[in-house]
Amino acid sequence: MSFVLHPRLEADTVFIADWPLCRVLLMNDARYPWLILAPRRDAVTEWMDLAVSDQALLAEEIAKAGRAVRGLPGVTKINIGALGNLVPQLHVHVLGRHGGDPAWPGPVWGHSPAVPYEAAPRDGLIGLVRSL
Amino acid sequence: MSFVLHPRLEADTVFIADWPLCRVLLMNDARYPWLILAPRRDAVTEWMDLAVSDQALLAEEIAKAGRAVRGLPGVTKINIGALGNLVPQLHVHVLGRHGGDPAWPGPVWGHSPAVPYEAAPRDGLIGLVRSL
Repeated sequence: MSFVLHPRLEADTVFIADWPLCRVLLMNDARYPWLILAPRRDAVTEWMDLAVSDQALLAEEIAKAGRAVRGLPGVTKINIGALGNLVPQLHVHVLGRHGGDPAWPGPVWGHSPAVPYEAAPRDGLIGLVRSL
Repeated sequence: MSFVLHPRLEADTVFIADWPLCRVLLMNDARYPWLILAPRRDAVTEWMDLAVSDQALLAEEIAKAGRAVRGLPGVTKINIGALGNLVPQLHVHVLGRHGGDPAWPGPVWGHSPAVPYEAAPRDGLIGLVRSL
């Protein structure tokens, strides 16, 4: 297994856990509860390049991440996205939105620079996701 | 079965087909080959509210839509998104992107007004997806 996380994802996120399929990362942007799921498979750029069994696992892990984010205070909507226009390694964003957030109702991607976390809320979120 | 498509999706798209889980729609924007998958389940807003078996079906249908779009001329990247900030009914966008498209490398959602199709290319795309 020679899964290597793309350097841009490495720089923008904090490691949370390895789930059966995906490396689970916290986007370092305190404005949104924002997880990134990167399937630990080599050289996969697109969803449909995953094996069918991995697609089903990815769907389950998206749901698990979505349930975690939906439970957080203030979250009223989950956004899910797999774009990869800048980072070709397949990764899926799962994040919580609400009517007062900076990008609402538009998408968060490319909207404005991230605001890095303070240690305490970051570690709280990481602990919560690790406990699932 | 009382699935009713949200009026905003009804207005912005053209019907293509009903797959095992999803109604498949063509976004009426000639600038991007853009399919929308709306699971034919009542009152489902979020991915994780689907049954696990439906999540797996959705993953397969996303892959099928993605393969269709990737085969079209000029497409170099697939974008997938389930946002629902404006239309709460669960629906998944699967569309083709390339370096010269209007929104590249940002997301298409909220970028700029759609450019409706002429009949011939629209019907060509619909026919292609129906033949899958």
